[in-house]
Amino acid sequence: MATPPSTPRADARRTSLPLTVVGESPRLRADAERNRIRLLEVAADLVAEGGAECLTMDAVAAAAEVGKGTVFRRFGSRPGLLFALVDHQEQLFQAAFISGPPPLGPGAPALERLRAFGPATLRHERDHKDLYIAAHEDVFLRYEAPAYRLRTAHLAMLLREAGTEGDFELLAHTLLGYLETPLVRHLLTDRGMSAERLEAGWHALVDRLVGAA
Amino acid sequence: MATPPSTPRADARRTSLPLTVVGESPRLRADAERNRIRLLEVAADLVAEGGAECLTMDAVAAAAEVGKGTVFRRFGSRPGLLFALVDHQEQLFQAAFISGPPPLGPGAPALERLRAFGPATLRHERDHKDLYIAAHEDVFLRYEAPAYRLRTAHLAMLLREAGTEGDFELLAHTLLGYLETPLVRHLLTDRGMSAERLEAGWHALVDRLVGAA
Repeated sequence: MATPPSTPRADARRTSLPLTVVGESPRLRADAERNRIRLLEVAADLVAEGGAECLTMDAVAAAAEVGKGTVFRRFGSRPGLLFALVDHQEQLFQAAFISGPPPLGPGAPALERLRAFGPATLRHERDHKDLYIAAHEDVFLRYEAPAYRLRTAHLAMLLREAGTEGDFELLAHTLLGYLETPLVRHLLTDRGMSAERLEAGWHALVDRLVGAA
Repeated sequence: MATPPSTPRADARRTSLPLTVVGESPRLRADAERNRIRLLEVAADLVAEGGAECLTMDAVAAAAEVGKGTVFRRFGSRPGLLFALVDHQEQLFQAAFISGPPPLGPGAPALERLRAFGPATLRHERDHKDLYIAAHEDVFLRYEAPAYRLRTAHLAMLLREAGTEGDFELLAHTLLGYLETPLVRHLLTDRGMSAERLEAGWHALVDRLVGAA
């Protein structure tokens, strides 16, 4: 999944200029990227309206008014589409905790950022609930997934910054275990817990791990 | 997948005795249970020798020198056999932490029992590694599974006894999240962590959650 380094040409991909060139294809690539984003937005709408089971290659093609072959060429398979869709949502969420406003993003003390991370994750995954549940079954949230590794590294960094003692990496996994998509679903649905209880539990857990209680 | 209610006739089907009794059947049931245990032991040996992928209904029938139909009647399907096998191992492990010798079993202070639970679980699942990994994919360790619920209740009880403050149920889930089979596999295999590091991490986690650090 390596992408070429950014160049003025590559940047041109991102514009919506009308026309041109054969051979060179920044313009074509820009169109391709635009089309990809458009298909992902159509797919996201389908999931938002009817749940993840409505997300089929056929349905995306129909809703986007393109041929089914176009959808297959772009994403390979339904799991591939699901993966791309989660990846798209993840990038928005990652931007929020890596470079967004405090207390989730930089600018707040590490303990505050740790405390904010749990509720933000719970809310983000709740807003895209069906998607995360479906993706979890298929391809996502295995521990090797880039999104999981990024979250681990982020929490380990904040734990260190907050002056926590101990094994940062294991503590980061412990925190992420609390936020596991299927566990959260179980607690909310089968155990009837409230979102407030889960958020309070997160704050208590962070305080205890950091030693700030 | 409904099975007809058990009757003496139905029980009689399960034995390999030449004949007998209608009406009472404690003897037949005892035989049936013995045969079931024998098939499970044969199955456990197959997994121990060749890994979970060697566990097929055919292989169990051949190794136990019974007809394939017998194995199917007893367990229904390969996932059913896998579930029965995990259940069998779980019962042995549960006996150890519910009524076995301290510090895992009763007789030690709650904090000691909490500290002992992690390494004991890590060792138990390591001893039956292939089985737990295969079962996790199929039928086991969903949060609704009896084994998971029992572990949650057990840890919540010990946390309370140890004088921990907070939401026992959420803290119990946090502790179990640390011991999740696929996470442990990831940490040992992909991240190259040692079993000692995982055990030390467990002790540090328990101490911090209980507030005994």
